[in-house]
Amino acid sequence: MAMHRFVPNTYHNVIGSLPPALHVADGDTVVTETLDAAGYDKNEIRQISGPNPMNGPIFVEGAEPGDSLKVEILAMVPTRDTGFTRSVVAVNVIDPHDVRALPAGEKAIWQIDRQNLTARLAEPVAGLETLTLPLAPMIGCFGVAPSLGQAISTATSGEFGGNMDYRLLGPGTTVWFPVAAPGALFFLGDCHAVQGDGEIVGTGIETTFEVTVRLSVEKKKTIVWPRGETAEDIFTIGNARPLDQALQHATSEMLRWLGSDYGLDKTAASHLLGQVVRYDVGNVFDPAYTMACRVSKSWLKRR
Amino acid sequence: MAMHRFVPNTYHNVIGSLPPALHVADGDTVVTETLDAAGYDKNEIRQISGPNPMNGPIFVEGAEPGDSLKVEILAMVPTRDTGFTRSVVAVNVIDPHDVRALPAGEKAIWQIDRQNLTARLAEPVAGLETLTLPLAPMIGCFGVAPSLGQAISTATSGEFGGNMDYRLLGPGTTVWFPVAAPGALFFLGDCHAVQGDGEIVGTGIETTFEVTVRLSVEKKKTIVWPRGETAEDIFTIGNARPLDQALQHATSEMLRWLGSDYGLDKTAASHLLGQVVRYDVGNVFDPAYTMACRVSKSWLKRR
Amino acid sequence: MAMHRFVPNTYHNVIGSLPPALHVADGDTVVTETLDAAGYDKNEIRQISGPNPMNGPIFVEGAEPGDSLKVEILAMVPTRDTGFTRSVVAVNVIDPHDVRALPAGEKAIWQIDRQNLTARLAEPVAGLETLTLPLAPMIGCFGVAPSLGQAISTATSGEFGGNMDYRLLGPGTTVWFPVAAPGALFFLGDCHAVQGDGEIVGTGIETTFEVTVRLSVEKKKTIVWPRGETAEDIFTIGNARPLDQALQHATSEMLRWLGSDYGLDKTAASHLLGQVVRYDVGNVFDPAYTMACRVSKSWLKRR
Amino acid sequence: MAMHRFVPNTYHNVIGSLPPALHVADGDTVVTETLDAAGYDKNEIRQISGPNPMNGPIFVEGAEPGDSLKVEILAMVPTRDTGFTRSVVAVNVIDPHDVRALPAGEKAIWQIDRQNLTARLAEPVAGLETLTLPLAPMIGCFGVAPSLGQAISTATSGEFGGNMDYRLLGPGTTVWFPVAAPGALFFLGDCHAVQGDGEIVGTGIETTFEVTVRLSVEKKKTIVWPRGETAEDIFTIGNARPLDQALQHATSEMLRWLGSDYGLDKTAASHLLGQVVRYDVGNVFDPAYTMACRVSKSWLKRR
Repeated sequence: MAMHRFVPNTYHNVIGSLPPALHVADGDTVVTETLDAAGYDKNEIRQISGPNPMNGPIFVEGAEPGDSLKVEILAMVPTRDTGFTRSVVAVNVIDPHDVRALPAGEKAIWQIDRQNLTARLAEPVAGLETLTLPLAPMIGCFGVAPSLGQAISTATSGEFGGNMDYRLLGPGTTVWFPVAAPGALFFLGDCHAVQGDGEIVGTGIETTFEVTVRLSVEKKKTIVWPRGETAEDIFTIGNARPLDQALQHATSEMLRWLGSDYGLDKTAASHLLGQVVRYDVGNVFDPAYTMACRVSKSWLKRR
Repeated sequence: MAMHRFVPNTYHNVIGSLPPALHVADGDTVVTETLDAAGYDKNEIRQISGPNPMNGPIFVEGAEPGDSLKVEILAMVPTRDTGFTRSVVAVNVIDPHDVRALPAGEKAIWQIDRQNLTARLAEPVAGLETLTLPLAPMIGCFGVAPSLGQAISTATSGEFGGNMDYRLLGPGTTVWFPVAAPGALFFLGDCHAVQGDGEIVGTGIETTFEVTVRLSVEKKKTIVWPRGETAEDIFTIGNARPLDQALQHATSEMLRWLGSDYGLDKTAASHLLGQVVRYDVGNVFDPAYTMACRVSKSWLKRR
Repeated sequence: MAMHRFVPNTYHNVIGSLPPALHVADGDTVVTETLDAAGYDKNEIRQISGPNPMNGPIFVEGAEPGDSLKVEILAMVPTRDTGFTRSVVAVNVIDPHDVRALPAGEKAIWQIDRQNLTARLAEPVAGLETLTLPLAPMIGCFGVAPSLGQAISTATSGEFGGNMDYRLLGPGTTVWFPVAAPGALFFLGDCHAVQGDGEIVGTGIETTFEVTVRLSVEKKKTIVWPRGETAEDIFTIGNARPLDQALQHATSEMLRWLGSDYGLDKTAASHLLGQVVRYDVGNVFDPAYTMACRVSKSWLKRR
Repeated sequence: MAMHRFVPNTYHNVIGSLPPALHVADGDTVVTETLDAAGYDKNEIRQISGPNPMNGPIFVEGAEPGDSLKVEILAMVPTRDTGFTRSVVAVNVIDPHDVRALPAGEKAIWQIDRQNLTARLAEPVAGLETLTLPLAPMIGCFGVAPSLGQAISTATSGEFGGNMDYRLLGPGTTVWFPVAAPGALFFLGDCHAVQGDGEIVGTGIETTFEVTVRLSVEKKKTIVWPRGETAEDIFTIGNARPLDQALQHATSEMLRWLGSDYGLDKTAASHLLGQVVRYDVGNVFDPAYTMACRVSKSWLKRR
């Protein structure tokens, strides 16, 4: 179980079957520094243009189509004192009739206090003079090479993961991706210091991080959509438009999971989900929207 | 501020401009017993068929179009030892390709322990033998007469409220509805002992309650969509399909609210929502779906 | 088979279980003059405000829930020399990112030449100086009282018909509506001199007409969604959002029709539809969108 | 203006920035034989698995990002006596409640009469014994490499074209694609002998063709979505889910086109489209749906 410090030579605006930048063994840990969503590094030097430059791909020995890649997010440490957001909500999250009266969005800078782990707008905005947000780091975009040798823009997402922008994808969370290419080919980037549901201004607080992940192969664990686990919950993720379809994907995947690992047939799983399920909105900004289907582990007994 | 005990002579499967069953003054409190969603009363006697029979309408003196009706949910006391659910998830919340393999749904009975405020399946289901859920009462369907003299099925929802099935609409919550008819004409029914997000089995645990609400008129407080407040949060509700549109309605309404009552222009409101908003899914079962846009009051200062 | 000239005393902005304004026998013909969508009559006098005032309801003797009401559109004669449209496309039919640059819509007047059956913009618009459109009259909004005693705004549509804005609903077409209330309670209004697919400026050329319809009851012919027939085609109509769901409703209804009346089981109907079906877009402006599923009668043999 | 006979060595299940298989000059003509959607050639020998194997990429000299690639479909000649379809409609084109009763789909064979240019089911189906369809050849999937070096599955579509399955994309039609990579990198395959709107059985009549196209570069003609022209009409294409969004893309693109080439500002274009536009449904089967916005050239004067 080696530890790798991965310093990319180049970054990618797609997730796909590209030549590996790093080979690791099953169970190895990788530490790597990510750019922000616009391609700036921790020194505010632009390394590449957006969208969402990725570190990777990382080839994980032993991973084959039909397996799952388990990604444990061990740590996320911010590496810069600034982050940026867009200043107004996206046109697609409000009533079409309200769009004309919406001001044009601009880039806004946030100060990140790395001692106290908080963020504040660099220039005060009327009514928000005292707004100080606790950091809640998360990975906006990560995943594995999709099927068929595809290479897909990091502006969007799919079964392979991608730009999901879901708040729970932070330190302490474990995520599984469906492997579709030999070595899985794992990519990672676009980390946020804070983000509300939906990423409705089109950004979280976009900044640079040092991220530590452990990558493991679960052989023959065939999944369709990304799955995750926190200390409290398990969840599945669907990526599609409209949100209704993302919700369908996530719910179908949860039914499969409750069946295979928790001994609940479709009726038992329905009884449970019907009364305890929680749905969380990832982004509603990108070409594909993201919905998570979440269940508290307090209701579950692993078989 | 009188207290009325309202015993309906009849129930309604629509919310609309029907002759008032009760007149109350601005600020009065009403206590009433609701039927379950299928029309059965606390003695398991069917009073009317479904969907979602309503108590009402209650004419609130002084309410005029352009005002808001403030509804404080003061108490919800279950009045029966049983509730029912459907036994499988709805066909529209899973991938279309998974529908053929889904068993047909049946009615399932839950035992409600009114001492301990818990619910259990009456007949054990493999894997859920020990499942005991704490009650979390909520009103599935309530609202005021819609505009134009419309009368709309309690199977669905709209700007006027209706069948929203949102978990936070329980005791301690205050809700505002846009008044569209003289007297507001308030209706109420379809209470749930427990319900997960989305009402994905097509029901919560459907049972009968004694509900206490205080009804007040807020003059000239013109809103478009329902709004609510709990001890911790404020929220707005959008009802539409797809979920994307429900989310647009809720977000637009929240922007209006943050502007008028919290002194945040669209940019300030965007900065705040972008990093702290939460979206909650009401039902994804009815003709119109429901999405709530929620903000913690810890971030807000009323003007 | 009597002929009735129906002159309403009042008009309605809802379709629902209102007191009948006229009783007719099964098979009778009704001639009536409609207002335009904003409530103006043929003399440009406003009789009522919008949306889409209806003539009706007409009680058809013998119609009971479970029957169909057959409506033959025998004639539509324009009764005014002017019509109006909105001058820009609706905000919901273009990319959200293009809305800010869209000019605000205004009311535009069209001259209707009732001799030559054409329409022209009253004030010339650059690039359209010679635009002369042949009239293609159609009924924008008509239908029967919905179930449960509902009364639903004429701004929208549903299983009962309503504001569908489908080009083929003009003279020579026969339409069937599912009867949900005794007497069917037929309503009619909102006629257009011309309209493109989608009613994407939010109007057709809105004007007044004298409309002649024959109303007949088809006992025990139980349908779910409106159906229609022209000289060339049969079609079914679905009303919902998103368009995807409207298309699902229309397709399901067509499969039922091909099964019951044309002897095609689901596989045979699939083979046929798969290679010859046509989908037409009604409106994509109202709360519910409209999609028609159409099949040429040249492919069909009535059983 | 050379003529190339292009015989691929390999086929691709993605459209993307792959090494060119052929270089042609601006204005050259290419004749090539396509496989069917499942990868079988004209001799019923499987060359590759699905989805929709492509011939290409063809590098067109002089094409640069910001240009358009003009594709004239000069001829499509069927090269096999059989084609296949799926035997039942897709689960996503009917009401979710009707899915359980839908039989499972199977592969069905059609006999293609290349003399008379007709197609018939190889094994008779009750009620369709005499069904003989005239061939109406079309290209199901074609387009150019998308932006960012992406490679996208031929099961779906986007701004770059792809699997659009639109009936009008046949001989005599000219299509423009937005160039996003040097040389455009044109791909072509998945041709249908016949297909209804929506490709609702998940296939047209899938077979092999010899296709002749002329490829030209229109410098600095920057478009966002595919455009097309037939003898009668011009049209634009949007690819997305839900259909509502595909329609938005297509309508926005048509407004741009009417502005730049036909001298109609947004108001004039709205007046015209509002009364004469036609929407055609491409496929409603793939991950992205397709909608075309079509206008008769009889209403237009090129500037």
